[in-house]
Amino acid sequence: MSEVKWEEIFETAKNWTREAGEFIKEKMSESFDVSTKANENDLVTDVDKGVEEFFKSKISTHYTNHRLLGEEGSYKAIKDLSGVVWIIDPIDGTVNFVHQQTFFAISVGVYIEGEGMIGIIYDVMNGEMFSALKGEGAFLNGTKLDKLKEVPLQESILSFNAGWILKDRRLEELVKACRATRSYGSAALDIAYVASGRLDGYISFILAPWDIAAGMVILKEVGGVASRYNGDALDFLESGTFMAATPSIYNEFLELVKK
Amino acid sequence: MSEVKWEEIFETAKNWTREAGEFIKEKMSESFDVSTKANENDLVTDVDKGVEEFFKSKISTHYTNHRLLGEEGSYKAIKDLSGVVWIIDPIDGTVNFVHQQTFFAISVGVYIEGEGMIGIIYDVMNGEMFSALKGEGAFLNGTKLDKLKEVPLQESILSFNAGWILKDRRLEELVKACRATRSYGSAALDIAYVASGRLDGYISFILAPWDIAAGMVILKEVGGVASRYNGDALDFLESGTFMAATPSIYNEFLELVKK
Repeated sequence: MSEVKWEEIFETAKNWTREAGEFIKEKMSESFDVSTKANENDLVTDVDKGVEEFFKSKISTHYTNHRLLGEEGSYKAIKDLSGVVWIIDPIDGTVNFVHQQTFFAISVGVYIEGEGMIGIIYDVMNGEMFSALKGEGAFLNGTKLDKLKEVPLQESILSFNAGWILKDRRLEELVKACRATRSYGSAALDIAYVASGRLDGYISFILAPWDIAAGMVILKEVGGVASRYNGDALDFLESGTFMAATPSIYNEFLELVKK
Repeated sequence: MSEVKWEEIFETAKNWTREAGEFIKEKMSESFDVSTKANENDLVTDVDKGVEEFFKSKISTHYTNHRLLGEEGSYKAIKDLSGVVWIIDPIDGTVNFVHQQTFFAISVGVYIEGEGMIGIIYDVMNGEMFSALKGEGAFLNGTKLDKLKEVPLQESILSFNAGWILKDRRLEELVKACRATRSYGSAALDIAYVASGRLDGYISFILAPWDIAAGMVILKEVGGVASRYNGDALDFLESGTFMAATPSIYNEFLELVKK
């Protein structure tokens, strides 16, 4: 596969993601005027499946030897990450999508032999596209993101669900020590926010490969670090805990969880 | 003052707020390329004061008998809310402004004899303007917001800082009972999100009048309820605790704090 044209795939993937965003907006404007609970669930299923089908059809036409690992079913056929695999979450932040009709993202990672090459996280409603091509840097709507600056813990903004504090009381030390906490409800956006310096660290206790695949490519390009919540390496076939941060905040996380 | 033309003031206030937003964006693009800590503080002072001066000058020219209660100094001269008073926060969400360069808002409330008539909350970077004129409904970018729907606690999204959980452990009951928690770091936006149904409730332990004045006008137009964290009525001359929600979630809050 040495002939893979990553620059071209990167541009193509961004265009497809924008197209998928338009599809989602159309579906939303059709559906949210009749927003019963049943309709909400139907809409999620519709949109999730529609976006995944859209990518599946595009990929199988344009890149016949690429495979797709998506939240909506296609992951079942994927037992390894050999060759080129697209790892896609059609709607990251489903609760936000249903309840808020904003603050959700399309997450698209492209990996070769398990190594991240392309990451795209598209905040559909706010029009922010975070993207990266390995070795070429990370971007927000085309503007290159700076390498992450080190921020002392007491000046940092950290993101995690309040629920995680109840599950692991060690997090209370971080709440007290940091400048502020936030919680946005979309792992892909949280990772993109760490990569763009809006957050300095993010912790979640349960994420799937499609929640983090795109984010990891973007994060690495700006010098961010991530692992499982115990310091173990991530893998992109299993769900698990997750923490991502600037290097110095990552070390603070690590010290905490090794206690 | 029976001749006050509220429709006209509403339109004027929205235009001034948009102008102030442009001023903030200009200041940001000048300053954030040299973002040392000292520069950040200067920028906040510059922008806070600049926006307040802008409104002060506009109001004193166009509405000579109106007064201004703003975060940056002008509050000191205001001992009562007689007549028409503009209650303004030039940047609500200062930490976000400095650290994220997004997720902050201009908050503009206009009150007569202590009663809210106009509320405008403008998310400058995401281009969302929430607004309301008493009796005429609330709007997001010109589209009328629906009356708030009742959402059961277990399906609700609630917003409060993780730090508050450490200060009042009763909040842990809400964390467990609700569907999800969020934290955005701008009281004005949090209240606007309750008013637009993105959140079902919001709690903070310390807010100033300029953090809530605009939000309260918007919230009331869609049937939302708010008070101090103990159920006491709000006042717009003192800082204090705050909770805002849909009526049924507000009752859940009230039960909790009366325990």
